[in-house]
Amino acid sequence: MKKKILFLVLAFTILFIDLTAEDGYRLWLRYDRITNTQQLAQYNQLIKGLIIEGESPVLTSARNELQTGIKGLLGREIALFKTLTSDGMIVAGTPSSSPLINALKLTDKLKNLGDEGFLILTTTVNKKKTIIISANSHVGVLYGVFHFLRTLQTNQDISNLSLESAPRIQRRILNHWDNLDRTVERGYAGFSLWDWHKLPDYLDPRYVDYARANASVGINGTVLTNVNANALIITPDYLKKVKALADIFRNYGIRVYLTARFSAPIEIGGLKTADPLDKDVQQWWKNTVDEIYNVVPDFGGFLVKANSEGQPGPQNYGRTHADGANMLADALQPHNGIVMWRAFVYDNNVPDDRAKQAYNEFKPLDGTFRKNVIIQVKNGAIDFQPREPFHPLFGAMPKTPLMMEFQLTQEYLGFSTHLVYLPTLFKECLDSDTYAKGEGSTVAKVVDGTLDNHPISAIAGVANIGNDRNWCGHHFAQSNWYGFGRLAWDHQLTSEQIAEEWTRMTFTNDADFVTPVKEMMLNSREITVNYMTPLGLHHIMGWSHHYGPSPWIKDKQRADWTSVYYHRADTFGVGFNRTASGSNAISQYAPQVQKIFSSTELCPEKYLLWFHHVSWDYKTKSGNKLWDELCYHYYNGATAVKGMQNTWNSLEKKVDADRFSHVKSHLAIQEKEARWWRDACVLYFQTFSKRPIPATLTKPDRSLETIQKLIYPYAPGIRPGW
Amino acid sequence: MKKKILFLVLAFTILFIDLTAEDGYRLWLRYDRITNTQQLAQYNQLIKGLIIEGESPVLTSARNELQTGIKGLLGREIALFKTLTSDGMIVAGTPSSSPLINALKLTDKLKNLGDEGFLILTTTVNKKKTIIISANSHVGVLYGVFHFLRTLQTNQDISNLSLESAPRIQRRILNHWDNLDRTVERGYAGFSLWDWHKLPDYLDPRYVDYARANASVGINGTVLTNVNANALIITPDYLKKVKALADIFRNYGIRVYLTARFSAPIEIGGLKTADPLDKDVQQWWKNTVDEIYNVVPDFGGFLVKANSEGQPGPQNYGRTHADGANMLADALQPHNGIVMWRAFVYDNNVPDDRAKQAYNEFKPLDGTFRKNVIIQVKNGAIDFQPREPFHPLFGAMPKTPLMMEFQLTQEYLGFSTHLVYLPTLFKECLDSDTYAKGEGSTVAKVVDGTLDNHPISAIAGVANIGNDRNWCGHHFAQSNWYGFGRLAWDHQLTSEQIAEEWTRMTFTNDADFVTPVKEMMLNSREITVNYMTPLGLHHIMGWSHHYGPSPWIKDKQRADWTSVYYHRADTFGVGFNRTASGSNAISQYAPQVQKIFSSTELCPEKYLLWFHHVSWDYKTKSGNKLWDELCYHYYNGATAVKGMQNTWNSLEKKVDADRFSHVKSHLAIQEKEARWWRDACVLYFQTFSKRPIPATLTKPDRSLETIQKLIYPYAPGIRPGW
Repeated sequence: MKKKILFLVLAFTILFIDLTAEDGYRLWLRYDRITNTQQLAQYNQLIKGLIIEGESPVLTSARNELQTGIKGLLGREIALFKTLTSDGMIVAGTPSSSPLINALKLTDKLKNLGDEGFLILTTTVNKKKTIIISANSHVGVLYGVFHFLRTLQTNQDISNLSLESAPRIQRRILNHWDNLDRTVERGYAGFSLWDWHKLPDYLDPRYVDYARANASVGINGTVLTNVNANALIITPDYLKKVKALADIFRNYGIRVYLTARFSAPIEIGGLKTADPLDKDVQQWWKNTVDEIYNVVPDFGGFLVKANSEGQPGPQNYGRTHADGANMLADALQPHNGIVMWRAFVYDNNVPDDRAKQAYNEFKPLDGTFRKNVIIQVKNGAIDFQPREPFHPLFGAMPKTPLMMEFQLTQEYLGFSTHLVYLPTLFKECLDSDTYAKGEGSTVAKVVDGTLDNHPISAIAGVANIGNDRNWCGHHFAQSNWYGFGRLAWDHQLTSEQIAEEWTRMTFTNDADFVTPVKEMMLNSREITVNYMTPLGLHHIMGWSHHYGPSPWIKDKQRADWTSVYYHRADTFGVGFNRTASGSNAISQYAPQVQKIFSSTELCPEKYLLWFHHVSWDYKTKSGNKLWDELCYHYYNGATAVKGMQNTWNSLEKKVDADRFSHVKSHLAIQEKEARWWRDACVLYFQTFSKRPIPATLTKPDRSLETIQKLIYPYAPGIRPGW
Repeated sequence: MKKKILFLVLAFTILFIDLTAEDGYRLWLRYDRITNTQQLAQYNQLIKGLIIEGESPVLTSARNELQTGIKGLLGREIALFKTLTSDGMIVAGTPSSSPLINALKLTDKLKNLGDEGFLILTTTVNKKKTIIISANSHVGVLYGVFHFLRTLQTNQDISNLSLESAPRIQRRILNHWDNLDRTVERGYAGFSLWDWHKLPDYLDPRYVDYARANASVGINGTVLTNVNANALIITPDYLKKVKALADIFRNYGIRVYLTARFSAPIEIGGLKTADPLDKDVQQWWKNTVDEIYNVVPDFGGFLVKANSEGQPGPQNYGRTHADGANMLADALQPHNGIVMWRAFVYDNNVPDDRAKQAYNEFKPLDGTFRKNVIIQVKNGAIDFQPREPFHPLFGAMPKTPLMMEFQLTQEYLGFSTHLVYLPTLFKECLDSDTYAKGEGSTVAKVVDGTLDNHPISAIAGVANIGNDRNWCGHHFAQSNWYGFGRLAWDHQLTSEQIAEEWTRMTFTNDADFVTPVKEMMLNSREITVNYMTPLGLHHIMGWSHHYGPSPWIKDKQRADWTSVYYHRADTFGVGFNRTASGSNAISQYAPQVQKIFSSTELCPEKYLLWFHHVSWDYKTKSGNKLWDELCYHYYNGATAVKGMQNTWNSLEKKVDADRFSHVKSHLAIQEKEARWWRDACVLYFQTFSKRPIPATLTKPDRSLETIQKLIYPYAPGIRPGW
């Protein structure tokens, strides 16, 4: 009889497995039944029911997630109880929502956890062994619930839980570069999730899953619209649509933000100017902002790209960025909204070095911004390159809160076909020392506000999410969404911890899978740098679409849109001299940093050609001459992708066929494109170096001319009409 | 113990149900376990194993489908056998692939079934009761398999099967208006399925499901690209991508076609002209076509939109459509490819009546086309309006095969938010009598080639498919894909039969659901005509995006792009006089048809304003004056949508929550927009009629001016830059 039962269960399991394609839709929130029988036994013993006291939409989200998650993980329904009468209850709530928790007198423990932190605790209540998930707020409880589920998903011991966690950065935000026609600028995962046409009447269930995924990693804000903004988004009809989304996201602790087009007072307000010092303009924005809050009472604020790449801004009227930002800040201030003003600016004049421009424009404005303005600074001074040294603005504006802008969408990192795990890039930047207040003044401390004691702090990631079924185009790109959220919550986590969590949740807890996959992820960004832009090279990608290599781009309408502007290759050598004898961009860093970067000896070789123009015969740390070293980097990068393919292929038995085959296909594309980058760059730079490719390396089997003829007019992610 | 088993099975079923969102992805090929226990018992008794003899990719598709389908429907694995040793085998194959079938001597039965027909037969083989699925070709077997599965899905008796089916039309084709940037012209279900960027290296599993769905209804061709064509699709890099799709689709009997841009010889061939009589041009096309067949050996041919709406064509060189089509036909002929040349033409001169233009241009060319050219004619002479009389070209070109072009995507029928079941529209046209060879010369007989004994026949549907999870945007829009395929196979099926099949397969066999839903579907198109364009009105929709009502459009660059050109409302009356006293478009029909349409007495009232300009006081068949009748139609249409909502709401218990709520949201949008159409049109026409809305009808609660101010710059489906 037992066999019969087993057979039936098996039959249904097989049916279930067949019918549920492993398409990646569930992200890291899979909640499949735990296969480790020992852990499962422990969990079954310690989890017998739930008590969630209190009522609110956010607590409902927490309750639903806990029920869904535990039911999936343990493979059985988990009942809700009203009173604690046996062991094995999970009690979740705040002291004010839950009499049970209130009675535990957790005030001391909770007081340092702020608005969003949580604690998870095994304790004895009424002589019953109980797991407590508590916080000062309902959203804190929700975060605690997701953390608890993660503990189960990663098969951790829960017999004696005692942990606390609170976010180090207040506003953890996704930036969607999504247009109202659903195209996504630099989007490689299909098209926008926001179906503006059917909003607000049709609410795609996917909006809820988007919110769940964000809340699970602590992301608490989303900018719905492209920084290259459209004023229509703040008209009444569109605000109804925004409200529909905000109403869903609010239940997961997520605030909505919008991009403000600076010229909106003209375009939709009927005014003749958008001058920020014009009283009518100021009044128009106040009225507009009041209207937004009327519809979305917890609206987060505006993200603004002004006077950059053709976008309008205060400089059109002879005003400063501070004038523009402060006008919007004044309109938002009564509602506690903020302005995130981007430092990614360059005007119509080609500068001697674009790397210097943001600093030159913003540093003098330090101290002139309203309290509710925060300056959003990209991690590096150029534009989300595979590797950049940290942006010199970090540490340079102590009187102004600065927020970080990372890019999750892989505009310069192989679109959604290359496996590149980005937390290593994020950490490299966050851990960089600005020396602004002496050693240890890391970028992370600037961003989390602790270095200069700023009352607001924020971090943004340009989303890599589209309507592809697996959200991000590549299953592994999900780890960048996950990792951004986890680091935004706690930048002290290591890339390895995050990779381990994500791999266990997304694939399996089997160490024979986790260990090699984690290694592949942790190496992937360096591998990509090697086959794209080793040794400090940058901005040598395809024109306009940024797809593939094009170091030969020159003679365009702006010198700083070309490749030759950045690599400066000539018969002597290669690299951008940013020392005192060159553009002197180095002078924008603190003296201790200058000292390091300005010396070819001290400068980390990974930044060498970013700061220095050096001879092809320059002797690198390996002992190789620069030209040979460059070739080795390119070849090693391409070869390493083959290694990633081997790693993945060896794991076929440990992963479902759907995702195995999907990743395998994508790694094959990455391998092909890594060779494309290698061949293109080596052959191109060889036209300057006039030196042979080292004898141990196989020569490219095609000519530079052949590669240069390739065109990709429909590469994805380009704004229509751009 | 039995209870325990039941509990476990139940538990797994619940888990399964929870985790599989009813998102519509599975279309009508759901294969959920049959709930009718009596039928299930019969099927279990009669289906015990499969024998599929022969090996080919198409037979593999048939085998997989049969296994997946039966396993799902019966809830158990179904074994493959090599020899027939017991009752209850399904034997599938052709006489040449299968010795078992060969021994049955089915030649007589098969001989009339052609290349694609099939027979399904209960018979006794070696004294064992057996079900035979046979055909002359492997794809015929595949069609038979899908038909057999449909029999099970719709819970039909299979104890004594004896049926034969063969398609009446040879080429049953979807036209995708998909651009290379993945936007879809007039697409309302997301963006293109074809991920050109990742092709050919990444093959989305969805491509297979697309092929399965098509094969299940007998669609055997797909034009991958927009009729507003891009020459790049026939360059080597894109042909590799096309090949990747063709290789998948071939396994399901589906051929790939492409759109040919007439100016391609200039744009990608480097020639100075695209003149079809130029030898270099002819040679260039021959070479290009050879290259296509080199890559896709069963390539179907070209679909061409030439000299229409700005597209290049032979008339640019003073040549005729026949010159252009024949040049391409000559290049395709050695490979058995065909040219589908669209009759939807209008040049830069505004005609006295656009309805006459296709006939005027093509009728004189009858007999001048190559044998492998077929003219693709829209169902009506204007452009896929909610209702049009049949196109006058049908029956007017006896020496030329004409194919039908229907539009599944609801460009003029509420996009993907309105529930409009289109087979009633298709049937209305197909059943229309052209009288070309006397009574009974229906459009269907023109299209299937029987009226004039043409060796090739074809039918096209402009696809309503995008990357929305449910493929078509609206769950019910799936029925139009389904219905098109079924009618393309057999235009003698009734709309009701098709609606019944589809509803049973897609939702449930429960008659309490099927009966009201079928009624709602069958009425839906007439309801839509009523609230959009009753009594023969047409082309009064929104400018450019075609969203919503805009009967007021006038004074545009072309008169025949306006609304007033078509409705001709004035203080006397309304309607386009196409009789001898007007544009005389009526003269393009056969005399018997002319006689009907030219008389206000005989003309069906549904076409009244299409052919006649009649007074507001004209007495309609109901006894009402025209103005009142028009109002009643608009109001009845809008009210009927409320009726559809009531029907749907009453069925909540009979449908899963996901699809219930999805359809409910969309019906609410339809209801809102039906009132929008009603109010806009009644208020607008009232400015001419100067008559009151009948007293029994509630007056619109908004003004015409308010409605006219609405703008929708990002309504979906517009070509970027158009």
